[in-house]
Amino acid sequence: MNEIKNDLLLRVLRGEQTERTPVWMMRQAGRYLPDYMKLKEKYSFFERCQKPELSAEITIQPVDQVGVDAAILFSDILVVPQAMGLEVQMLEGKGPLLPEPIKTAKDLNRIYVPDVNEKLGYVFDAIKLTKQELNGRVPLIGFAGAPWTILCYMVQGKGSKTFDEAKAFCYMQPELAHQLLQMITDTTIAYLKGQVKAGADVIQIFDSWGGLLGPDDFENISLKYIRQMVSALKEDVPVIIFAKGAWHSLQSMAATGAHGLGIDWCIQPEIARQFAGYKVVLQGNFDPAKLLSPIPVIESEVKKMMNAFGSSKHIANLGHGILPNVPVDHARAFVNAVKEFQIQK
Amino acid sequence: MNEIKNDLLLRVLRGEQTERTPVWMMRQAGRYLPDYMKLKEKYSFFERCQKPELSAEITIQPVDQVGVDAAILFSDILVVPQAMGLEVQMLEGKGPLLPEPIKTAKDLNRIYVPDVNEKLGYVFDAIKLTKQELNGRVPLIGFAGAPWTILCYMVQGKGSKTFDEAKAFCYMQPELAHQLLQMITDTTIAYLKGQVKAGADVIQIFDSWGGLLGPDDFENISLKYIRQMVSALKEDVPVIIFAKGAWHSLQSMAATGAHGLGIDWCIQPEIARQFAGYKVVLQGNFDPAKLLSPIPVIESEVKKMMNAFGSSKHIANLGHGILPNVPVDHARAFVNAVKEFQIQK
Repeated sequence: MNEIKNDLLLRVLRGEQTERTPVWMMRQAGRYLPDYMKLKEKYSFFERCQKPELSAEITIQPVDQVGVDAAILFSDILVVPQAMGLEVQMLEGKGPLLPEPIKTAKDLNRIYVPDVNEKLGYVFDAIKLTKQELNGRVPLIGFAGAPWTILCYMVQGKGSKTFDEAKAFCYMQPELAHQLLQMITDTTIAYLKGQVKAGADVIQIFDSWGGLLGPDDFENISLKYIRQMVSALKEDVPVIIFAKGAWHSLQSMAATGAHGLGIDWCIQPEIARQFAGYKVVLQGNFDPAKLLSPIPVIESEVKKMMNAFGSSKHIANLGHGILPNVPVDHARAFVNAVKEFQIQK
Repeated sequence: MNEIKNDLLLRVLRGEQTERTPVWMMRQAGRYLPDYMKLKEKYSFFERCQKPELSAEITIQPVDQVGVDAAILFSDILVVPQAMGLEVQMLEGKGPLLPEPIKTAKDLNRIYVPDVNEKLGYVFDAIKLTKQELNGRVPLIGFAGAPWTILCYMVQGKGSKTFDEAKAFCYMQPELAHQLLQMITDTTIAYLKGQVKAGADVIQIFDSWGGLLGPDDFENISLKYIRQMVSALKEDVPVIIFAKGAWHSLQSMAATGAHGLGIDWCIQPEIARQFAGYKVVLQGNFDPAKLLSPIPVIESEVKKMMNAFGSSKHIANLGHGILPNVPVDHARAFVNAVKEFQIQK
């Protein structure tokens, strides 16, 4: 393994005080980048995920073009249900479609906990190639969805504002739901261990729909399984949990032993720190829509955010994925403003 | 005006201790009711809003059929932009469409602060007729959208997960945005005063998209205008603010002098009480998706919720609108469970 030259992210996640705060952006390898759009025109979504050379190229684009302190593998959380035997389609402009979702006990027989090397080996190959091409410039973040978020798609079959069918599945057939959540968990742990073995330096768990659950349900349906994942990984690699909207459970997420917790822009950094305690690293929390502001506004808002977080135990990021309509120079202004920030004493 | 026989809701909002907690459900006059669906097949959305006899019939259905302690006028928050001169279409299964949204200073010239009696008189007629037909059984709640939520639709032109164009409008053209927000506020205050004059007993302000804004933006873009509305109304009638997801601002919402604050299911009642203080009434917060659970689960979850809120300063409700796929007997089980609840000492 190459030594990593810019290891700010890793040092912050190990609890060290660093010379400045590291910065990256969720969905930084994506549609706001013109070079990504060129590849998007030529290759389907799953081609871009499945061809290691494409995935590596896309992963590295924002490192070269925006100057972030970490790369995050270009892939999708839905490769896991796909590997478990469920068909997943990506419809242009419409999002994911799983034409045969899980509704009954019988449906559960159609899926399985796969051999991840067989089904997801292409991700591990992409990680190896990306690491080689990154050549130690910055760390590489691997990732997967939280089991609850994956269940949402497996049951609802498509995106939703409320994921009420997924929730009803958990409320009406709790045993079945927990059986499915455990299968997803087992698959994902093996998948993430494979990512680490292939060279991922950090793992982020995305619970994109964690915020749809009330605090008790979040504990029983989501965090219970995230906890298993963190336990299985945390000795090998730093782990970040990003459960969007689940501010109410920052304390219990911190208690999992995760190294970092992502927060969105709807919670003040000072309040998040109180809830999460003083040990864990916080990641966030710039409003992605604010990258549509004029650059001087972006710069002053970044200062405000950085002062609120303070100069340690913070990874600067957005509070959710970057929007496709953000101009590249606005993304760059965000990254540069973080890099140039000096805490006001 | 008739005396109201079941005035539980009004007494709780006046700060009185009542013999039991009142209960109603957001969107209780809606698609989960088969009798509503019959009218929906025969009349368009705006016919249902604009014909007083239809609006009254739909408004009263849940009082008769589910046993709620309050009626809420059947209408839509988008009648306000419509009255301000913007075309609003309701597309079946797709939601609202405003084909000529506001994007520039020039667009602002197309709209105006209307004479509400001329443009929204049909709502006042519907309120008068509903009051007559309710004949004092339960109070009638009038409502309007918060200016920020109305701006979302006026600028974005349709529903959205992020309303990023509406947010970008506020960030890129703040003067224009505040001018628009003030026009909406002026219209809405006149509109709500008209509703009260026509007989509405309580007013609820819906800030459905308040939770998309960070705490500072919520104050500057949303609460600033809600505050004007509350000030203009609170001496005449009890006012409830429901800003979904804006838990971070419960304290400042309470400080507006509103009588009640709605909360969603993602905040524990005890925590909401700490944030909001001990004076204001809290309304909520059953997860609407939980009405898809088996009835015994609904009953035990209602007990849990009721115990968490305690026996005073609470209006039982859902944390958002009832879902169309909820069986009527599940909605009834929710209402009955609240009515039968005895606090566990």
